[in-house]
Amino acid sequence: MAVVEVTIAPMGTGTPSISHYVAHCHKVLEQATDLKHQLTPMSTIIEGDLDRILEVIRKMHEVPFAKGAQRVSTLIRVDDRRDKELTMAGKIKAVTEKLGNGGK
Amino acid sequence: MAVVEVTIAPMGTGTPSISHYVAHCHKVLEQATDLKHQLTPMSTIIEGDLDRILEVIRKMHEVPFAKGAQRVSTLIRVDDRRDKELTMAGKIKAVTEKLGNGGK
Amino acid sequence: MAVVEVTIAPMGTGTPSISHYVAHCHKVLEQATDLKHQLTPMSTIIEGDLDRILEVIRKMHEVPFAKGAQRVSTLIRVDDRRDKELTMAGKIKAVTEKLGNGGK
Amino acid sequence: MAVVEVTIAPMGTGTPSISHYVAHCHKVLEQATDLKHQLTPMSTIIEGDLDRILEVIRKMHEVPFAKGAQRVSTLIRVDDRRDKELTMAGKIKAVTEKLGNGGK
Repeated sequence: MAVVEVTIAPMGTGTPSISHYVAHCHKVLEQATDLKHQLTPMSTIIEGDLDRILEVIRKMHEVPFAKGAQRVSTLIRVDDRRDKELTMAGKIKAVTEKLGNGGK
Repeated sequence: MAVVEVTIAPMGTGTPSISHYVAHCHKVLEQATDLKHQLTPMSTIIEGDLDRILEVIRKMHEVPFAKGAQRVSTLIRVDDRRDKELTMAGKIKAVTEKLGNGGK
Repeated sequence: MAVVEVTIAPMGTGTPSISHYVAHCHKVLEQATDLKHQLTPMSTIIEGDLDRILEVIRKMHEVPFAKGAQRVSTLIRVDDRRDKELTMAGKIKAVTEKLGNGGK
Repeated sequence: MAVVEVTIAPMGTGTPSISHYVAHCHKVLEQATDLKHQLTPMSTIIEGDLDRILEVIRKMHEVPFAKGAQRVSTLIRVDDRRDKELTMAGKIKAVTEKLGNGGK
């Protein structure tokens, strides 16, 4: 299980607004019901099998081209930990617990 | 107003767990009451004046060194838009609205 | 053809030096003789077919685990342009030519 | 001394070509004669005092706005190591030496 962050941005579309493209990419992700995901103000975060996540991101990367973009910049950050189970909820919990008791 | 994502990771600490360091960095951010922030499973996202955000991130970057790390890898992603107000909530809303009506 | 930047970092290895891991990852890349690559002080940059590049990066990501790391953080940045051929040399040339004639 | 990678990309400019903007950003960097820098196909890498580098990057980030962009996406990756001197040349050498003797 890995946690992966992805940001897919079309370049040179003529408008600084890209939420239209982000929404269409997200629809592709929503079809992958075996993966958990979370939308953040800067990215989408996905949890699940790494190979499966990369397969879905590969499809998401094609979306802006299908919508007319000529250049797409995609950022992928993989956090892969194998000594213990890694989940989005577990990562947040590990930090907030430490915040709760003085960061100790 | 900018929206900025930051991830601060100590290198070579001898343990794959870094939530302890993340929590201490977050405490520095919490003192900046003029900035909005959100913890995600992969990063911290901050909203506010860009110069002020960079000033606070600079302080956060020192935290792992103060806690004993010898090397720190910090990733900063700035989204700065000047034709309209950019906020974390506004960015999420722009995408979810488009998801709601078929991504149109 | 895409140009892709990759950085693969083991977490919690007990030493801040990671060049040993980088070199082993690079050896996997060198076996992919159909891809061009360039080592930079912060990453490796690869040029070629996007699917082929992602396949090789997937193998590179396993290297630190095989060498004993328990957690690996991998950053992938894809620059994919389809209105014209995108190459590492072409990208550098486009900038240096503009620098040469006053950035016009 | 830190080594910092920066990529500054205007969003929504109407053309997928951004080398014009990259060249203008680079001119600002060239005025900082106290910093070493290297242009790569995916970024600019800068070596020197961290505070000084961040100050120059802050100026570079303004360049696309001055040239008409309404939104700018800037990625900054800081590699800061304090147990030994960190340089661009030293980082490359550490890897290539290990490649030369079998990655050992």
